Amino acid sequence: MVDTTFARVDMASEAIDEIKSLAPDVEVRRITVPGIKNTIWGAKKLAREGCTALLVLGWVGPSLTDKLSYLAMSIGLIELQIHLDVLILDVTVHEDEAADERELKSIAVDRSRKHARNLVALLRGDLSRLAGMGLRQGRPDVGPII
Amino acid sequence: MVDTTFARVDMASEAIDEIKSLAPDVEVRRITVPGIKNTIWGAKKLAREGCTALLVLGWVGPSLTDKLSYLAMSIGLIELQIHLDVLILDVTVHEDEAADERELKSIAVDRSRKHARNLVALLRGDLSRLAGMGLRQGRPDVGPII
Amino acid sequence: MVDTTFARVDMASEAIDEIKSLAPDVEVRRITVPGIKNTIWGAKKLAREGCTALLVLGWVGPSLTDKLSYLAMSIGLIELQIHLDVLILDVTVHEDEAADERELKSIAVDRSRKHARNLVALLRGDLSRLAGMGLRQGRPDVGPII
Amino acid sequence: MVDTTFARVDMASEAIDEIKSLAPDVEVRRITVPGIKNTIWGAKKLAREGCTALLVLGWVGPSLTDKLSYLAMSIGLIELQIHLDVLILDVTVHEDEAADERELKSIAVDRSRKHARNLVALLRGDLSRLAGMGLRQGRPDVGPII
Amino acid sequence: MVDTTFARVDMASEAIDEIKSLAPDVEVRRITVPGIKNTIWGAKKLAREGCTALLVLGWVGPSLTDKLSYLAMSIGLIELQIHLDVLILDVTVHEDEAADERELKSIAVDRSRKHARNLVALLRGDLSRLAGMGLRQGRPDVGPII
Repeated sequence: MVDTTFARVDMASEAIDEIKSLAPDVEVRRITVPGIKNTIWGAKKLAREGCTALLVLGWVGPSLTDKLSYLAMSIGLIELQIHLDVLILDVTVHEDEAADERELKSIAVDRSRKHARNLVALLRGDLSRLAGMGLRQGRPDVGPII
Repeated sequence: MVDTTFARVDMASEAIDEIKSLAPDVEVRRITVPGIKNTIWGAKKLAREGCTALLVLGWVGPSLTDKLSYLAMSIGLIELQIHLDVLILDVTVHEDEAADERELKSIAVDRSRKHARNLVALLRGDLSRLAGMGLRQGRPDVGPII
Repeated sequence: MVDTTFARVDMASEAIDEIKSLAPDVEVRRITVPGIKNTIWGAKKLAREGCTALLVLGWVGPSLTDKLSYLAMSIGLIELQIHLDVLILDVTVHEDEAADERELKSIAVDRSRKHARNLVALLRGDLSRLAGMGLRQGRPDVGPII
Repeated sequence: MVDTTFARVDMASEAIDEIKSLAPDVEVRRITVPGIKNTIWGAKKLAREGCTALLVLGWVGPSLTDKLSYLAMSIGLIELQIHLDVLILDVTVHEDEAADERELKSIAVDRSRKHARNLVALLRGDLSRLAGMGLRQGRPDVGPII
Repeated sequence: MVDTTFARVDMASEAIDEIKSLAPDVEVRRITVPGIKNTIWGAKKLAREGCTALLVLGWVGPSLTDKLSYLAMSIGLIELQIHLDVLILDVTVHEDEAADERELKSIAVDRSRKHARNLVALLRGDLSRLAGMGLRQGRPDVGPII
């Protein structure tokens, strides 16, 4: 679990709560870094300590600079998965996704919990029975196109 | 075969059906991940299990954030092909490509099946007789400029 | 020589013709892939087979998605040159470069032939006498600023 | 400490002052390069000399070209952290963040000092008690969403 | 020294002249490639031949495609510095920087010469006394914010 002080919602606590209820025996470690670009360092550290699956919880501002930082983070987390044997699900909330703070918080909570479930599901088997089902994290699922 | 729960069409089933009809003896493995940025992890896993050619079927939302995620995925899949000896054809459907859901589904089905054929063709020889022919996946071919 | 079925002009044949007239003894190999993002796989394959210099001939659509695919391809081909000892000149035609198909074809032919000449020139020595001369491929040279 | 001659504020001196007051025993080394894209070379040099944690202080112009240079720098610093065992916090000031020079300087000073504190905090333990607290560097904290 | 035939000013000759006047004993090697994306190959070649510091002189057109090519080049040159022990200063002139050809040429000459001086200064010690001084290459220095 890697999260940031930049985020405005304690997403890691939501995700940890979800994981503990689904898989009580799993050992969870957590590291907090300042912002999204630092999550790669945090993720690498946890992977070196033995973690085999990571949730990286990020919060992204609305400017072009923020979007480019998001891109750099995304490329970095992918690169890390190519170099190390670790599964990383990144959970990012973007400030331009919602009209007000309340909606933003609800997206953050929903997305953190659903990706925590995805992580457990991936480790237990895979998600093939849900392929193409239009699942969404942060919002209600949109479902498949019939 | 790597696909996602984010997609709104079961593209992998279309592609598998196409491959089975063209090359019945080929063994097909499939892994489903939440979204496009996770396909690199899935592709690496299948490559390690012995798969030598992969279709990665992704679905991309219409926002700038989605486009940047697409870019990160594209760079990651290319990077993986540089590091491992595996052929990856990525098949992505972008929600801003079509005016309505029906057209989007038709693009997804057509693109998945045509790239399945491309994969088989590449493994059997190459596609040189079709070079410069303006082939399109998801839409009708536009043909060469005469 | 790596080209695509997506292209609307048989650029590789133009380039091969040019190379054969300049350097008749050179052995040319060619592989055709579906689209630009697959050229990295093709280029790596040819480099492994012993090719020391490659022309990669791509065709890029006009949308933002196409531009990002172009970026991913460009980064990938550069990455490949860092990892392997191979020279790659990429020759890309962008559909938004021209007002009509005829102009597009003329750009494609001119660019393919001129970059073929560049490849031969680079292998024979270097291009220093033409440094800063405002050479263009696909269009007439613009020349140096006097 | 890696900084640039392009910057318009001596951010490194601010950061060094902050570190010295928090952790007087820490040895600080500093290298100055022309611009942000050169910070990767500087960071690698300091890491090779034994530095285990780095602040990279950059200044970014307002044009699209500057934004893309920022992206290249960000990807490079992340890549470096994947390859070497070093923590890098990058502190960048963007000229389009502020309406006038005075505000820009105040952002630069605040951001440099706060990230210096972040660096010390990360090395001493971690920042988990501040996770999701909406901390900002360069501006006042926005706080968590209640 | 890596430059291009695409450039409209012989930037390398300016830079070489500057280096020779500052450090007459330095051995300078030069390679010219067609365009900016090929500079990585040229830079790698010179690094393998023993060059420890490189100026890469590029010229970038005004379109989005050109900007993305610039980004790919920037990422590539950074990647090369991570993999090899070489200092690379890239000097790029962007056609949208100036209103007319005359101004563009003056930017190109000034930037090439100033970065040549930067290269010599970096190799001799470092630039820390000029940190945060708002130095610019291609234009007059803007100076520090007082």
